Amino acid sequence: MRREETNRRVVLARRPAGIPTPDDFVIDAVPLPEPGEGEFRVQNLYLSVDPAQRGWAADVANYSQPSPLGEAMRALAVSVVEQSRHPEFSPGDHLYGFFGWQTHCVALPAAVLRRVDPDLAPLSTAAGLFGINGLTAFLALTECGTPKAGETVLVSTAAGAVGSLVGQIACNLGCRPLGLTGAADKVRLCLDRYGYAAAANYREDNLDAFLAAQAPEGVDVFFDNTGGSILDGVIRRMAVHGRVVQCGTASISTWTPPPEGLRQEREVLTRRLRWSGFVIFDHKARFEDAVQALDVWRREDRILLDEDITDRLEDAPGALAGLYRGENRGKRLIQLKP
Amino acid sequence: MRREETNRRVVLARRPAGIPTPDDFVIDAVPLPEPGEGEFRVQNLYLSVDPAQRGWAADVANYSQPSPLGEAMRALAVSVVEQSRHPEFSPGDHLYGFFGWQTHCVALPAAVLRRVDPDLAPLSTAAGLFGINGLTAFLALTECGTPKAGETVLVSTAAGAVGSLVGQIACNLGCRPLGLTGAADKVRLCLDRYGYAAAANYREDNLDAFLAAQAPEGVDVFFDNTGGSILDGVIRRMAVHGRVVQCGTASISTWTPPPEGLRQEREVLTRRLRWSGFVIFDHKARFEDAVQALDVWRREDRILLDEDITDRLEDAPGALAGLYRGENRGKRLIQLKP
Repeated sequence: MRREETNRRVVLARRPAGIPTPDDFVIDAVPLPEPGEGEFRVQNLYLSVDPAQRGWAADVANYSQPSPLGEAMRALAVSVVEQSRHPEFSPGDHLYGFFGWQTHCVALPAAVLRRVDPDLAPLSTAAGLFGINGLTAFLALTECGTPKAGETVLVSTAAGAVGSLVGQIACNLGCRPLGLTGAADKVRLCLDRYGYAAAANYREDNLDAFLAAQAPEGVDVFFDNTGGSILDGVIRRMAVHGRVVQCGTASISTWTPPPEGLRQEREVLTRRLRWSGFVIFDHKARFEDAVQALDVWRREDRILLDEDITDRLEDAPGALAGLYRGENRGKRLIQLKP
Repeated sequence: MRREETNRRVVLARRPAGIPTPDDFVIDAVPLPEPGEGEFRVQNLYLSVDPAQRGWAADVANYSQPSPLGEAMRALAVSVVEQSRHPEFSPGDHLYGFFGWQTHCVALPAAVLRRVDPDLAPLSTAAGLFGINGLTAFLALTECGTPKAGETVLVSTAAGAVGSLVGQIACNLGCRPLGLTGAADKVRLCLDRYGYAAAANYREDNLDAFLAAQAPEGVDVFFDNTGGSILDGVIRRMAVHGRVVQCGTASISTWTPPPEGLRQEREVLTRRLRWSGFVIFDHKARFEDAVQALDVWRREDRILLDEDITDRLEDAPGALAGLYRGENRGKRLIQLKP
């Protein structure tokens, strides 16, 4: 079997206990699948590495069914159609969708999140700035956070693939963005590159003192990717009528058994907070609006997404585990050479 | 000093530790105050007893400054103007506002929440159905809960002065109301009088089994007046895109030290909940709309608020403490005979 006739895959071999580790996956190669009627086959060009994959790998159905064991790990990818038995998809079409951690994928149209215009911007942007990172940053901030010019917007994982964009978008909307991140060099990135007015290292700095100094009137919007004790602390510094956007819970390594924390109901009540959960896949109808808004800023050099790209399929599991250790500097992608 | 020349008061004598008790108050009588320029004096006709008074009596500023020690306990009342040095208030005008647990009050216009039309309905309704209970039930449910016909609306303290109205309003809006309450006779009231499709006694029944049976597709709107373990249980039975309206935290007897409970951020995220805090005084601009809607139902006999009225000023502190023990059957008022 020649290499180009095989589909190399990162297969989910067992359910992770908490954060997925490389031991939860095996690499294999299977014969290249042929599309059936109504299907098409893509070659994957960029595989995405996303914190949401922890949830997809778990055996608890949350907003989606678990990624099946023994198959390529569920993942987003930027891909090009190479064979099609569906009238709306032609060889050469570029797509962004659920094509898995593998070199090729036979898919139905339901797997597609967006069609990609390869002339708009470098292809990798389709998995980042114009992928779920940028779409989440824009739509979660504007639809759930509803920031107004002049308000203070606090972002946890402020230098991450979503957070770094939230900071820049908040800045572009006339807000005062504050960043929380987990390393000194990321604090510098927040200040020098991502438009934050101030940033703190939550591993070393005193969160409450930072917020008292930088948000004396309270935090109007908290874009939270971490949960846990950071959330507990921030909620007690929210402004009246503040909005908490729950976009991730990266600081909680396992939900079994259910962890405890400070009760929030009195804070929600007396501060009249609005605390919303956001899952990007609910918002497909708004994707093209978001891409348009983000692309205007991109062309004006008012937004950028740093990329952290490797080129070995085998590195995907380690890249995912590293996300939770805060290793990445920018959006993690695996570039596959055709 | 003749009795009609004195102002009898229930004075907040010390800061309560948690739920206020009668020992936190003293009863006194002081000379009848005279209104200064721009003020008016009312005679109180109905004093309101409300769970929110716990927060007003505490020394922690939450959404309002603490009720001052040594003065009449902050309270709402339905009152009639007897002297006025303000051009917009005349003797005989009926008002609903912050006139305190006392027989008379000299006030500024800022104390007034609503003007009361004494010909619309019995005067006591101005403190209940058309007071903060009815206004909260209507505005918190419709603005934060945003229920749609056919949805399941769960109410804690379902037979209380707010909850019993939420059940009826949800029913009038075409929803399926479910009630949680703390006594067997209140379960019966929920079913027989307040329009609930089903109700449970949270002290005796299994909450999770009740919700599994009565809301198999999940709870769409949770109107929560209790917080605590009831909230923890319900959140895990919310439907995707459900709304939690935090209107009270009656089940938590003290917030010092801060109590712990199950972490909610994963539930908020994966269920895409919207959890909002509601304080009625933010919504003054909508009061007359709400009264109009409630009065239509009242005239059609589609809504009622049971009243639990005593006539001794001295009973106010005990009536408040009893609210937290679930003693009341309906809206607690103290009727003062002029």
